[in-house]
Amino acid sequence: MIKLNYLFVLGSTLLLIGCTEQSKQVTQKPIKSNDVISIQQQGTFAVGGTVKKSPGEFDPIAHGAFNPSNQSNVGQTLHGDHASVLYQIPTEPRNLPLVFWHGYGQSMRTWQSTPDGREGFQSIFLKKRFPVYLLDQPRRGLAGQSSAPKTIEARTEDQLWFGIFRMGEGVNFYPDIQFSKDPEALNQFFRRSTPDTGPLSINLNIDAVTALFEKIGEGILVTHSHSGGQGWSTALKNDRIKAIVAYEPGSNFIFPDNDIPDPIAYVGGTLSAKGIPAEEFKKLTKIPIVIYYGDYIPETEVENPGQDQWRAALRMAKKWTKAVNDAGGDVSLVVLPEIGIKGNTHFPMSDLNNQQIADLMYDWLKEKELN
Amino acid sequence: MIKLNYLFVLGSTLLLIGCTEQSKQVTQKPIKSNDVISIQQQGTFAVGGTVKKSPGEFDPIAHGAFNPSNQSNVGQTLHGDHASVLYQIPTEPRNLPLVFWHGYGQSMRTWQSTPDGREGFQSIFLKKRFPVYLLDQPRRGLAGQSSAPKTIEARTEDQLWFGIFRMGEGVNFYPDIQFSKDPEALNQFFRRSTPDTGPLSINLNIDAVTALFEKIGEGILVTHSHSGGQGWSTALKNDRIKAIVAYEPGSNFIFPDNDIPDPIAYVGGTLSAKGIPAEEFKKLTKIPIVIYYGDYIPETEVENPGQDQWRAALRMAKKWTKAVNDAGGDVSLVVLPEIGIKGNTHFPMSDLNNQQIADLMYDWLKEKELN
Repeated sequence: MIKLNYLFVLGSTLLLIGCTEQSKQVTQKPIKSNDVISIQQQGTFAVGGTVKKSPGEFDPIAHGAFNPSNQSNVGQTLHGDHASVLYQIPTEPRNLPLVFWHGYGQSMRTWQSTPDGREGFQSIFLKKRFPVYLLDQPRRGLAGQSSAPKTIEARTEDQLWFGIFRMGEGVNFYPDIQFSKDPEALNQFFRRSTPDTGPLSINLNIDAVTALFEKIGEGILVTHSHSGGQGWSTALKNDRIKAIVAYEPGSNFIFPDNDIPDPIAYVGGTLSAKGIPAEEFKKLTKIPIVIYYGDYIPETEVENPGQDQWRAALRMAKKWTKAVNDAGGDVSLVVLPEIGIKGNTHFPMSDLNNQQIADLMYDWLKEKELN
Repeated sequence: MIKLNYLFVLGSTLLLIGCTEQSKQVTQKPIKSNDVISIQQQGTFAVGGTVKKSPGEFDPIAHGAFNPSNQSNVGQTLHGDHASVLYQIPTEPRNLPLVFWHGYGQSMRTWQSTPDGREGFQSIFLKKRFPVYLLDQPRRGLAGQSSAPKTIEARTEDQLWFGIFRMGEGVNFYPDIQFSKDPEALNQFFRRSTPDTGPLSINLNIDAVTALFEKIGEGILVTHSHSGGQGWSTALKNDRIKAIVAYEPGSNFIFPDNDIPDPIAYVGGTLSAKGIPAEEFKKLTKIPIVIYYGDYIPETEVENPGQDQWRAALRMAKKWTKAVNDAGGDVSLVVLPEIGIKGNTHFPMSDLNNQQIADLMYDWLKEKELN
């Protein structure tokens, strides 16, 4: 009776098994309490943003008909450039919520189901009783409305990102990778990417995340990749950020302007650091920070640019860690394979071992008494 | 200690009250069980979609460096045109899930928190123990990756949509409207709009929603506005859709091709019907369908185009209801003010009385033994 399109057959099988088990659970056996997520409140909101206004006065009679090819905008506004937030607050919540901020080309999907359909950090940390806030940064995903125009080019780039995200080279996975070989997992992974709907603006992003912490109060910021560097800058603006967990920061490292390291060249580009006043930089010493990097980061130059850029990022992150700690800070940098956790891509939070990665993060929060 | 930006102060107050009460609940009083949402499984996935491939063979060494201004796409793919889905399955779930499909310019946010921060249909129906699936249709929101390019123009259009969504005229709300006068509610409402990230394609939308039902099995489709007409077409393709609840369908009404009604003119445009083979049309008689319209729909022509187009939509919906029922179908059309429910905008599911609107829908499901 059930005909499945080839593309969906594997994911569908997983879900159908889920549904069958679910009915069984209801009728035949009780659901184990540690399998259940108990939510006292959940919802969504927009935060931050700008309002753009066109000159003139809007006339609902003259300008009120929809005509996509000949639209008047006299006297009208556009609300854009906000972040869009999904939150869930469990029963018996811990004090500090986790705020999850995605990376370049990604969205809140980074923290939701894994590409192979298991629980992501959203549900894992809810079960650990943390309130969770997931955001789409301005001009991305559900925060799509932008005050500035942009052409989306629909370029074919899957294999470029497969390399940069350290899944493998070309179309071949690295050996022993923590990523499902089920083709549906890769299909799901590629479909998580979503384009910018306006020019990327780090300042708008930082403003929106700052506004989010102004709204929700104290919390822990969890960043990934491109949001890592933006996370440091957001913490400078906002003393409600009580800790940062950064997965694989790749750029926008900030240093005291009297001690900026030299740019680091890699195959295909150069990673530069940015200077800020030393007094400003010191704010980063006030909160505990942990940085995690996955596997397959070379120690010396390799010819594959997608892989080699992470050699530069890791080297810069080590300099940054030393700079903050030398100023009195508390930054830990963990290279996962160095502590025996191997095979992680650029997305440890959604890799096959993401429960182990989450436990590691939880242990760090506990050690810092943030749990 | 807490400084709040003016723009966020009202929404923030609501949330802060929520947080305070939440701590109190934990330490001072038990949470009432009917306030808690108990989830056995939640997650996200992409469904449907296409894969575009550029000619040639990708070389990770030659083409693997990211350079946004000079990107090679030789031999690469793009996975796009899928829908993006968020689902939650409560403990002790009912048999048939609800699949929520948004309207034009909107996203799954339609069914999440209301603009004034209360529970939307997602949480309301979860508490009624329905599994819920919320989708962003292809090329919208979190389903942003499109196989075809598009320029997003960032046009100021808030007041145009304020009129078309029957909130009021110009910048003035209609009297007795079921929408909060708190300026933050309107701010949140405008920020829920999100642009198409590729050319709007009704066929891609229908394909993705069909694929969703192929994946999850039988369910009830809940549409809004632009997805209403697309919903009828999706039901023709998919016998897993066991009922349709349509809020304010506005276009794409399909009729037997031997009995297509004349186009209906309104101020600013014309609403036409589309013909399909009469045998095909008969499929719509196999499932129960309910259609709801809100308030402020004129019976005779008015000069405001934003308002007048709904006169045409309602008239066409009545013809459509009669056509399906004459063929042996089971369609109910409910004009809310005619049953004493007044003040609803184009978004009854998120208006101030949305609990009442949800109860009405639940009663209909119960009457049809779909609960």
